[in-house]
Amino acid sequence: MYRTHTCGELRINDVDKEVTLSGWIQAVRKLGGMTFITLRDRYGLTQLVFDENASAELKNKLEELGREYVIKVNGKVIERSSKNPKMPTGEIEIVVSDVEILNKSDIPPFTIENETDGGDELRMKYRYLDLRRNPVRENLELRHRMGQEIRKFLDDEKFMEIETPYLIKSTPEGARDFIVPSRMNQGEFYALPQSPQTFKQLLMVSGFDRYFQIVKCFRDEDLRADRQPEFTQIDCEMSFVDQEDVINTFEKLAKYLFYEIKGVSFNDDFPRISYDDAMKYYGSDKPDLRFGMKFTEITDIAQGKGFKVFDSVEYIGGIVAENCADYSRKQLDQLTAFVQKPQVGAKGLVYVKYNADGTFKSSVDKFFTPEDLKTWADSMNAKEGDLLLILAGKREDTLNALNELRLEMGNTLGLRDKDSFAPCWVVDFPLLEWDEEEQRYFAKHHPFTSPKTEDIELFETDPGKMRANAYDFVINGVEIGGGSIRIFNADLQQKMFRALGISEEEANEKFGFLLSAFKYGAPPHGGIAFGFDRWCSVFGGSSSIRDYIAFPKNNAGRDVMIDSPSEIDEKQLNELSLKVIKK
Amino acid sequence: MYRTHTCGELRINDVDKEVTLSGWIQAVRKLGGMTFITLRDRYGLTQLVFDENASAELKNKLEELGREYVIKVNGKVIERSSKNPKMPTGEIEIVVSDVEILNKSDIPPFTIENETDGGDELRMKYRYLDLRRNPVRENLELRHRMGQEIRKFLDDEKFMEIETPYLIKSTPEGARDFIVPSRMNQGEFYALPQSPQTFKQLLMVSGFDRYFQIVKCFRDEDLRADRQPEFTQIDCEMSFVDQEDVINTFEKLAKYLFYEIKGVSFNDDFPRISYDDAMKYYGSDKPDLRFGMKFTEITDIAQGKGFKVFDSVEYIGGIVAENCADYSRKQLDQLTAFVQKPQVGAKGLVYVKYNADGTFKSSVDKFFTPEDLKTWADSMNAKEGDLLLILAGKREDTLNALNELRLEMGNTLGLRDKDSFAPCWVVDFPLLEWDEEEQRYFAKHHPFTSPKTEDIELFETDPGKMRANAYDFVINGVEIGGGSIRIFNADLQQKMFRALGISEEEANEKFGFLLSAFKYGAPPHGGIAFGFDRWCSVFGGSSSIRDYIAFPKNNAGRDVMIDSPSEIDEKQLNELSLKVIKK
Repeated sequence: MYRTHTCGELRINDVDKEVTLSGWIQAVRKLGGMTFITLRDRYGLTQLVFDENASAELKNKLEELGREYVIKVNGKVIERSSKNPKMPTGEIEIVVSDVEILNKSDIPPFTIENETDGGDELRMKYRYLDLRRNPVRENLELRHRMGQEIRKFLDDEKFMEIETPYLIKSTPEGARDFIVPSRMNQGEFYALPQSPQTFKQLLMVSGFDRYFQIVKCFRDEDLRADRQPEFTQIDCEMSFVDQEDVINTFEKLAKYLFYEIKGVSFNDDFPRISYDDAMKYYGSDKPDLRFGMKFTEITDIAQGKGFKVFDSVEYIGGIVAENCADYSRKQLDQLTAFVQKPQVGAKGLVYVKYNADGTFKSSVDKFFTPEDLKTWADSMNAKEGDLLLILAGKREDTLNALNELRLEMGNTLGLRDKDSFAPCWVVDFPLLEWDEEEQRYFAKHHPFTSPKTEDIELFETDPGKMRANAYDFVINGVEIGGGSIRIFNADLQQKMFRALGISEEEANEKFGFLLSAFKYGAPPHGGIAFGFDRWCSVFGGSSSIRDYIAFPKNNAGRDVMIDSPSEIDEKQLNELSLKVIKK
Repeated sequence: MYRTHTCGELRINDVDKEVTLSGWIQAVRKLGGMTFITLRDRYGLTQLVFDENASAELKNKLEELGREYVIKVNGKVIERSSKNPKMPTGEIEIVVSDVEILNKSDIPPFTIENETDGGDELRMKYRYLDLRRNPVRENLELRHRMGQEIRKFLDDEKFMEIETPYLIKSTPEGARDFIVPSRMNQGEFYALPQSPQTFKQLLMVSGFDRYFQIVKCFRDEDLRADRQPEFTQIDCEMSFVDQEDVINTFEKLAKYLFYEIKGVSFNDDFPRISYDDAMKYYGSDKPDLRFGMKFTEITDIAQGKGFKVFDSVEYIGGIVAENCADYSRKQLDQLTAFVQKPQVGAKGLVYVKYNADGTFKSSVDKFFTPEDLKTWADSMNAKEGDLLLILAGKREDTLNALNELRLEMGNTLGLRDKDSFAPCWVVDFPLLEWDEEEQRYFAKHHPFTSPKTEDIELFETDPGKMRANAYDFVINGVEIGGGSIRIFNADLQQKMFRALGISEEEANEKFGFLLSAFKYGAPPHGGIAFGFDRWCSVFGGSSSIRDYIAFPKNNAGRDVMIDSPSEIDEKQLNELSLKVIKK
């Protein structure tokens, strides 16, 4: 037997027990003739003592031990003279009577501590050692806990978890598929699913009523920061529901998770904000509502005063940084530099200090009187002591830049606490999006998303104005999930395809089996999919999903630990009738 | 709102309520001026009544309705005059005041009934309709329930569910990998995992202590009956354990599932049978213990009596079919034909009738006296009225054939009731298997499986005799799971590689990252993996895993519903620098 207890288990009540523990050596400390070893396993740390009177044999063994050695010890639990209140086992220690080395360890390439000296690259190559560190293990514990609670909730709500296939069919729509050559069907290929979308809709046609799955999905995209070629979705679909039903069901899930995992209660409904308002007030369809600092447009009142930069633009607007009127030259210069970064893209920043004494000081004092500036301040609900930060330019670009500026100010002012949570629903998304290049509409969500009933007549007159029964779930400025009520009526689907410029023939080719399934009594249905990796990272207070994935890939899609992808045997390719073309 | 209640919910207490239901039309029956509709959803069936006094409008709508139409009805719950005790809702019906057609349906290609008129092919092509049938839905409900209970149990036992990657590295060992070309790393490939074996071992090195995952695995094999290219494993691993710990933990899981899912309690430990005994008594390493009929070897007592067929063979043995001494000529001929089938492979069958009156009648009366036959009967523990069925030949072949014969007799005599369960553990597997063709040993389980401590010395003298710390879990003759205690000691691993004829260099190339991880303090560990599809099918009483998979593939690895695999765009191949070679 390797252990009677884990390393996180023993307490003062266990004093005098003879115990056996196994684990890794976290640290060895010598103090006079005594040696102290901190023994570690998943469950915690326990202090071992080898006292001066230990046998020569034991002392010899002790000399062999090193960091990360795996040992098994027998010993007696005693009360510690100097207790450690920070350790759950800190009131006791084990006087070791016998030690067995289960396995030796080379010196690890970085320290196995909460704060390690290993860089990203090294930790990824030795991910199995990085995973020994508490913060990393705790991330995966959070993920496990969330997975369990999500399943429990959805099971209680009568959702059935149904596994859909991984070897499916490539559809040349949306993102790029990963493909899998078939050996038994030479020249043919499977594709890995980007999502189980069509299968979950088929399951609704099958009458399963409530489906979910926590499932890997795959997208062969050029990886931006914090994207992974394989990622995990909480995929859900319901029948005989409208948008209100779906939102209510999953708001209940979110509240359940907030409470069970984070101990946070939300008594009120989560705020809902229309897509239009989200863009208008936050320049983003995933607003961070942990803080205010809404945009105010002042185009009307700021134009026509002879300031050319303003007079020629489509949009002028800004935010109010509370109690920041005393910002220094340097601070303002830094903000200007920030908005001028290519990824923010503003030409410049106009500031107005609404000083504590009621006076104004701005970067545009030459063009505007204090009275002018007062009207801006009033319109923006600023008060004495506040700083107005104003951008101008093309509407869309400026809203984008203001969004970045707002988030930056939120960071600077400490308004984006990772332990505070502001969930919201973004609703009333546009159904269609005009593509300038291809001169046609694309589906904003996907071609099966239903339009609002009251907007259906716009198909004929102004399709771009149609709103969809689509909704996103956002926490702290991060899109956690999104979904829609689907079209289940053949006529409406035809209208949608027509608006997208898709012929009946093309539709059949691309979505044939789904359309054919819809002929046999499809129920009204809709659903949502959550990014599980991302939800974990937001709950964990990290901005990187990688921290919540046991074996993530890097930005080049490589797993540097196992060195994958890699070349394969010519024989394997031959069996698949494939040849690599060297370029 | 589409419904106030589901179709499985209303009871006699609900009489007089105004309700709204939605669902599919299962059947329409006219009876005089009345029309009865059976409305179906996932939760059940409810009878709708349209009475003679219904409005003309309602009657007109009624004319439009057909099988599998999706409708929404409003109406009042009334007590049924002729109650149906077989239906949970059979005491009530709904007098419909209003009906709305939510969706029409073409006439389905087969009937949506428990017993359908659709053949296999057709049902697979329209799997989404097949899934509407109760028995198929119930299979997936069983699977869902099992998944939930397995997770609950393992979570309670402190196992953490950790997702391992799907895009991994191809290893040219074991079965064939499915490969996935990488676009970002041209000429390189990922492979889909055949199992998360190496990752779960790495997680033990990382100190996760107890891991599990319900996970898809992939094998590109030529599909035998009831194999799927993608299948689901319950994959588990534990640290600081020996074989006894693993078996006890998962026997507890199995008992939990038997109780929670099937309502079956097992008070005693599951029987354990050594590999040698399993082969000796049942000719199989997955014996069906629902019935006895163990083999008895009678080589010694049956040879040397001048029957040439017996005298020259390696093995003579048989089974006793109780109370079958009155088998007819025809029945015995059928059994002879059975054992002579190529897949059974015996040359012939010797029978001995131990008649009720104590006399003997056999197919070898010319060679053996009644006294001879009596010694056989005694040795085989037969009694008057029994039938002895005896095969002879090479030991291994004959044991195989006897296994088939035993199972066939089990079927014939009704001893293999699908609602009765006989689980067991098969233990003490050989560590190595001699391959005649390659003239070398192969690992019976895998090269990381540890030998029994007391057998380690045999590495030098008689490797083929070594037993492994490996175990299989079997229910009703079906292998449900298997696992082993792994080697975690570098010296022992070297010995194992040497026995397998694998050089250090080759080992590093093939298993490099695992071996390198093992240098940093690998704990003793071991685990098990269960075939989830198969466990579901055994609990469900079916011999086919396909019945427990929502969207299975056929024997050619095709999904005939979505028509996959299929050809892909030249553009996609170009992006991957791949070319299909037409043969």
